[in-house]
Amino acid sequence: MTKIKRIVYFVSERTGITAELFGKSLLSQFPDVEFNEYQKPFINSIEKAQQLAKELAEIQIKKGIKPLVFSTMPDKDISNVLQQAPCHYYELFAHYLKDIGNDIGTSPTHISGASHGLNNTKSYDKRMDIVNYTMTHDDAMTMKNISNADVILVGVSRSGKTPTCLYLALHYGIRAANYPLTEDDFQKDDMPQVLQQNKDKMIALTINPKRLADIREKRRSGGQYASLSNCRSEISHALELFNRYGLTVFDTTSSSIEELSARIMQEMKLK
Amino acid sequence: MTKIKRIVYFVSERTGITAELFGKSLLSQFPDVEFNEYQKPFINSIEKAQQLAKELAEIQIKKGIKPLVFSTMPDKDISNVLQQAPCHYYELFAHYLKDIGNDIGTSPTHISGASHGLNNTKSYDKRMDIVNYTMTHDDAMTMKNISNADVILVGVSRSGKTPTCLYLALHYGIRAANYPLTEDDFQKDDMPQVLQQNKDKMIALTINPKRLADIREKRRSGGQYASLSNCRSEISHALELFNRYGLTVFDTTSSSIEELSARIMQEMKLK
Repeated sequence: MTKIKRIVYFVSERTGITAELFGKSLLSQFPDVEFNEYQKPFINSIEKAQQLAKELAEIQIKKGIKPLVFSTMPDKDISNVLQQAPCHYYELFAHYLKDIGNDIGTSPTHISGASHGLNNTKSYDKRMDIVNYTMTHDDAMTMKNISNADVILVGVSRSGKTPTCLYLALHYGIRAANYPLTEDDFQKDDMPQVLQQNKDKMIALTINPKRLADIREKRRSGGQYASLSNCRSEISHALELFNRYGLTVFDTTSSSIEELSARIMQEMKLK
Repeated sequence: MTKIKRIVYFVSERTGITAELFGKSLLSQFPDVEFNEYQKPFINSIEKAQQLAKELAEIQIKKGIKPLVFSTMPDKDISNVLQQAPCHYYELFAHYLKDIGNDIGTSPTHISGASHGLNNTKSYDKRMDIVNYTMTHDDAMTMKNISNADVILVGVSRSGKTPTCLYLALHYGIRAANYPLTEDDFQKDDMPQVLQQNKDKMIALTINPKRLADIREKRRSGGQYASLSNCRSEISHALELFNRYGLTVFDTTSSSIEELSARIMQEMKLK
């Protein structure tokens, strides 16, 4: 059976982040279809919309199939140009705004989507500060101000701490620090004092030793670091320490950083 | 005029990222309303849905107003429990899936949203590798393998390079490196040789000197580094260099990292 193929456009007056993310979530419900995806951010004038409509028409002529278009387009005139183009047009806002307005008892502004812009300099700067904090508190680069963290992830090297911290900081403005358990800690058979004092902020990460060995093998091949027996021993010793301090442990083996972040936020009652 | 206040829940069987992001985009169209937001990820059983329905009922009794609920819930039984709860229920998938299915000519799976999970280990590991590349190529920590970058951001300290690189890497899997122009470069009145060789991959960032001075003042107060005259001089000298090499320049003064990332992707024709 040959896969069904479709062309998809994510269109927006601004960044297109909402259109792409929501559109992709919808398309993930059609795993048997191969989607060829195009991003079209900053379609903020009739002229740009007409240009895009021309492109859509050319695809229909060339491929014989109308492309799907997911758009978040508060400007009705621009939206109309695309609506009339040869495509399956999904304006993702229109359907909901009226109903929400009715339910709340007020009208939507229909002003270009402000959700990913720099609308509030103060809160934006705070988020960037938090990204910076997380960068400087990655991998125990510094333990200074570690008690200012909202959450401290602890785990062996390559268990997923760093990307999860970055995701928490960038997306949710969470001050996330992390500490890698190393040979030094295992020899002392304990965690550093400063971590013990911040035990309430800690979340421990574990991972299947085979998966860990795979990941480490790609990073630094052939040595003790990536060997399965070493990975097993580190994970097992780490779990002992986590258990001793009663830490919540999340398994990252088959969790994405997005899922882990959601779990951490929930566990720590952040936000 | 007192602001209208409403309680909003973002609900999902999985991470809730799509429900929250799309819901917030919709709510940004109602700037006069103050929304009190709650995240409820991992509502993946009838029991959890009933628990949440109870919580919604309590709010309605206490506040006298039904909360808004934005949900992405492919499981119809769980969705029905929430639908019947005392709330304004917006199931964000249901409305579109049928139409998309008709347009494509196939049916949706209605299996729990896979869009933010770890479905494809290979592509996930690649994205994590790219995050790691971006971390190690931040702030010119190493110039090794800089020619493997998809894009190299250049600009003075605190012009927005680091968070933009991280966003590009985490979200789009773009191998983003960055180089900060410093006093050393200004004295040589040139950019390093290795950057000149990778000129086609470079995007330059500039920023309003006053905004830069504000940002630096918060970082390191009172010195030459944050002084307005120094910021003016650095920005002006940087623009000369950008111009000499014919680099595309983006102004980060009133752009968010999300907007910048979308512009960079478009300019570099990435993805």
